[in-house]
Amino acid sequence: MDLTALRNANPEHWAKAAAIRTLTLDAVAAANSGHSGMPMGMADVATVLFEKHLKFDASAPNWPDRDRFILSAGHGSMLIYSLLYLTGNSAVTLDEIKNFRQLGAKTAGHPENFLIDGVETTTGPLGQGIANAVGFAMAEEIQRAHYGKKVVDHYTYVIAGDGCLMEGVSQEAITLAGRHELSKLIVFWDNNNITIDGTVDIADRTDQVRRFAASGWHVIEIDGHDPKAIDAAIVQAKASKKPTMIACESHIALGHAAQDTSKGHGALTDAEQLKAAKEAYGWPYGPFEIPAEVKSAWEAIGARGAIERKAWEERFAQLSERKQAEFNRAYAFEAPKKLAGAIRAFKKQVSEDQPKLATRASSEKVLNVVNPIMTETVGGSADLTGSNNTKSADMGVFLPENRKGRYIHYGIREHGMAAAMNGMALHGGIRPYGGTFMAFTDYARPSMRLAALMKIPSVFVMTHDSIGLGEDGPTHQPVEHLAISRATPNTYVFRPADTVETAEAWELALTFKDSPSVLSLTRQGVPTVRTQHKTKNLTAQGAYVLAEAEGKRRAILIATGSEVSLAMEAKAMLEAEGIGTRVVSMPCMELFAEQDEAYRKKVLPAGPVRVGIEAAVRAGGWDRWLLGERGREAKAGFIGMSSFGASAPAGELYKHFGITAEATVAKVKELLG
Amino acid sequence: MDLTALRNANPEHWAKAAAIRTLTLDAVAAANSGHSGMPMGMADVATVLFEKHLKFDASAPNWPDRDRFILSAGHGSMLIYSLLYLTGNSAVTLDEIKNFRQLGAKTAGHPENFLIDGVETTTGPLGQGIANAVGFAMAEEIQRAHYGKKVVDHYTYVIAGDGCLMEGVSQEAITLAGRHELSKLIVFWDNNNITIDGTVDIADRTDQVRRFAASGWHVIEIDGHDPKAIDAAIVQAKASKKPTMIACESHIALGHAAQDTSKGHGALTDAEQLKAAKEAYGWPYGPFEIPAEVKSAWEAIGARGAIERKAWEERFAQLSERKQAEFNRAYAFEAPKKLAGAIRAFKKQVSEDQPKLATRASSEKVLNVVNPIMTETVGGSADLTGSNNTKSADMGVFLPENRKGRYIHYGIREHGMAAAMNGMALHGGIRPYGGTFMAFTDYARPSMRLAALMKIPSVFVMTHDSIGLGEDGPTHQPVEHLAISRATPNTYVFRPADTVETAEAWELALTFKDSPSVLSLTRQGVPTVRTQHKTKNLTAQGAYVLAEAEGKRRAILIATGSEVSLAMEAKAMLEAEGIGTRVVSMPCMELFAEQDEAYRKKVLPAGPVRVGIEAAVRAGGWDRWLLGERGREAKAGFIGMSSFGASAPAGELYKHFGITAEATVAKVKELLG
Repeated sequence: MDLTALRNANPEHWAKAAAIRTLTLDAVAAANSGHSGMPMGMADVATVLFEKHLKFDASAPNWPDRDRFILSAGHGSMLIYSLLYLTGNSAVTLDEIKNFRQLGAKTAGHPENFLIDGVETTTGPLGQGIANAVGFAMAEEIQRAHYGKKVVDHYTYVIAGDGCLMEGVSQEAITLAGRHELSKLIVFWDNNNITIDGTVDIADRTDQVRRFAASGWHVIEIDGHDPKAIDAAIVQAKASKKPTMIACESHIALGHAAQDTSKGHGALTDAEQLKAAKEAYGWPYGPFEIPAEVKSAWEAIGARGAIERKAWEERFAQLSERKQAEFNRAYAFEAPKKLAGAIRAFKKQVSEDQPKLATRASSEKVLNVVNPIMTETVGGSADLTGSNNTKSADMGVFLPENRKGRYIHYGIREHGMAAAMNGMALHGGIRPYGGTFMAFTDYARPSMRLAALMKIPSVFVMTHDSIGLGEDGPTHQPVEHLAISRATPNTYVFRPADTVETAEAWELALTFKDSPSVLSLTRQGVPTVRTQHKTKNLTAQGAYVLAEAEGKRRAILIATGSEVSLAMEAKAMLEAEGIGTRVVSMPCMELFAEQDEAYRKKVLPAGPVRVGIEAAVRAGGWDRWLLGERGREAKAGFIGMSSFGASAPAGELYKHFGITAEATVAKVKELLG
Repeated sequence: MDLTALRNANPEHWAKAAAIRTLTLDAVAAANSGHSGMPMGMADVATVLFEKHLKFDASAPNWPDRDRFILSAGHGSMLIYSLLYLTGNSAVTLDEIKNFRQLGAKTAGHPENFLIDGVETTTGPLGQGIANAVGFAMAEEIQRAHYGKKVVDHYTYVIAGDGCLMEGVSQEAITLAGRHELSKLIVFWDNNNITIDGTVDIADRTDQVRRFAASGWHVIEIDGHDPKAIDAAIVQAKASKKPTMIACESHIALGHAAQDTSKGHGALTDAEQLKAAKEAYGWPYGPFEIPAEVKSAWEAIGARGAIERKAWEERFAQLSERKQAEFNRAYAFEAPKKLAGAIRAFKKQVSEDQPKLATRASSEKVLNVVNPIMTETVGGSADLTGSNNTKSADMGVFLPENRKGRYIHYGIREHGMAAAMNGMALHGGIRPYGGTFMAFTDYARPSMRLAALMKIPSVFVMTHDSIGLGEDGPTHQPVEHLAISRATPNTYVFRPADTVETAEAWELALTFKDSPSVLSLTRQGVPTVRTQHKTKNLTAQGAYVLAEAEGKRRAILIATGSEVSLAMEAKAMLEAEGIGTRVVSMPCMELFAEQDEAYRKKVLPAGPVRVGIEAAVRAGGWDRWLLGERGREAKAGFIGMSSFGASAPAGELYKHFGITAEATVAKVKELLG
């Protein structure tokens, strides 16, 4: 590349881009770690995007109608940190840039949404950003349809690298976006032909242009270092009726000795080479030094959106008060006041009717109550709508011809669904939930983890939650998936025992603001165990005494979900033999752990033997409750799974794997000695 | 569809295909569950493939040079069960067909490789079969290059549905296959335009032909019910220098009232409709009845390959004895006799040198010993070769121009890598291992679970196994991933403390025949703790006493991996205060659980307080060892993680999260009271 020619062709653009490049070099050198090459390669694209197109106001990074900018290639975090610092985002000071990747700094190794307003989503695990972006763009469409174009009208821009496009989730994202004609989604592909192991060619020869076009995208190919071409492409993309991919031919680590090499991907810290690169840029400034005119040019870009924002605020003020309140409530993840009463009324009716229902069917009944009063919910399923029971009557299907639809047929794309759900939650104004079989937690897992890390309240509706699904066999029978979600920080796993607990679990999941929930629901019918109506949400305590021992308490049975009714059967058998037995229903271990010690001891007093019952592996968080955190609390045993399942009718499998009231009784007696 | 015309055009073909269709209808009706439509739709393709092309011998389903047939759309299991029964596979009797989906039957809801010789891989989770198939085809190429075309020369055929093609992993598989020009991979796409939620169009409008072509595939479009077209397409595909996708326009549930509908996907059990479908087929036979001439025609197809197989056996016998032994040993997953001695010699040297090394670097050193003596290993990494240290010096890179290469640059495709690894192991003759960052267990997880379920010894090399990876931050720092793999049945998780334990872990992983292993390896350097050479593989016992208490034993520290040296530091500090402390290194919980009770009690006697140390969540299987399985064994505590990590240098993070020798000492004292 002839850098001098580039510089001379457009010195003002060049200086702005050079500011990104040199901040990146200096920050990575100071941290002695990081990824220099990507920000250096994409600085021109980012500069043109921010200068000429991105609708944002650096002083109000949470302005709801801003354009979203998503750095899917999150390792290039210095690109976004540079942009935020240069444009005047108050969270990213020069000190933060200097503290790149240090303990307590907001400028973490990969951009974290919860550290900086202005970082829209946490990226780093490749492919997530582009898949989140589909959710952002869907959220924009849905909200625009609901509130009108005067209040919601913005674009979602993404920078994605080769890694993002090689990850399978990108295909799920691309095909979803293409099907739904998400025309306001614009992806820049950093086409630098370099991966860590070598040139892209070593592992991939896909024609990305044809690939995107095959799924209904508009594709534009440009020189990623030509500001005019970049601008023209964005203009064209904004006018397109399809989502647009702009393939930007670029040079990783532009101007550095490591340009166009794998080495350029990583931390470029050599002092001499750094100096040489700055010289090549015509940049005679010291480390972290940005000349005042360049900084002020960038700050003008950061301030440019203030006028538009104010105009938007005026338009927003013209909405009815009800609409404004609804909008603000949804953005704050606040449940409507009506919710609690509606759930209570539902519970009361259920305690009277005492249906025998699969909890997935109970869940649908709850959604029929919830969705009409929470206009911000957007549901969906990865092609298992009838099985996951995720579609309530009033939702309408989201399609290009019906942007008001609140139900999304995600197709056979569990991972893309979870990532899109996260994107909707991050966009704001939407509370997403989506369903699949619980065993396919595995497919959705990378995005489920990120929901927890990003502190967003996505709700994952995981039905067919044990061997109780029967004949489909071990590939479809979760045994370790409760353990997986329970081992994940900041994740609430609900395994309700009946329709009442299902309603309580939903109520909680719908009021969380910064934690995802996993609902573990049965395929098979279970009886109502909460036959006596309680106004209070007992599930909120995580575990509670469902049935007290008659006479002296010698055993405590702790069970979840479909096994609670089995515990009740075992209790009856034990009591018949004079063994006083308490049954504790434990729909949410995480919430129980949050209760004070007095309550926990009240529910699980030391002394009686304890038996846990769950059609899953014991590793799913059980020992703490069976044995006591420090040990020595109780003699204990567990009735559950220790292997994969098998293909057979559910009832036979329960017997085959020894998950029965009889086995529970035998275990209690064994422990009592 | 005019079934009469189809039947009249080729009555013999029709009868053979009708046998599949009616067996499917009858078995699903008997089970009252299952998926009827797919086998009915693809019966013509399968019939032509088996009759005219598939190289197999029903009497020898494990013949190594057979063509592989993979039913990626595994829910259509009655297709493969019908084919195996009809062609005379002894495992699939008519009774098995009648017992479809019943407890103990080989004819499980989804085809399970470990139940039937002739089912090449377990499918059901969509996309896995097509992604396994890439590994099958790679294995064939690698073995052909190694043993010659006279001994290895076969095709891999796949039937994939819309679900398989929507799953992201299919993109990873397709692009890998295209890059590597796996010309002997032939995929039939069951293009029936139906998913569970509706027509494909509801969620996807991808032009699959363009999509495959974009990644270097040869694509052919045919009528999936025209035997001549099917045959011609296969002939063409076999001659292609690229992998081939044959798009087969088909009718789900052909001939049934539910034809071309979502209902047709599931269990078609209505007796009247079943009768009508049989009438439409011109099939006047009772349930499960196959007329003798049709059965014998199918049996002739099953017997056809015997001649070829015998010719192959003669050619195989012409290999050198050494080559024959190597081939048979690799197919039996038997490690070479030399392995044990080589590992011992390596361990001895390490105990003398006592290097401070990251265990990922130790792993590379072990691979440098192992790979030259195990010609069946095939390594790789998902674009992190230099970080995962998975490439030993002698391997060569697998590429179209170097089919002898034993190292695969999988690209940024963790899921596709794991699935391809499984495919290689299932193909036989290859022992695959592959690396990524441990946090990206999440991406590979669906295939890692299947490796365990399928009982195959894939080795997953997971480096950067804790906050010890430092600055890349919480997205890249596993905290729950040890828990995830440990909660998975039939999975051995090794977290070696130093180079010696790394060698021992590899030795074990390389001798397993029916279980996958996960190697959890550090990014950061750790000292050698096994400074005294032991011939015996101590890791084989899962846990052992690394250092005994001086004087009265009051505490036991149990640690894994990078935290073992920290336990040794804490021990020194405790002993200095007169607190006798044993250190137990626990590199593999699963193997420790398999030891007899006497050994387990010897290592973890009741009485002393116990503290577990692992830079991960306690839910990772700890409580059993800290508290005793039935409780009441010991007072115990844990030093580890209870949240996601953060971005900072590793040393600072260990302090920040309180994983230090000092914290360990404090915890012991607290427990001692």
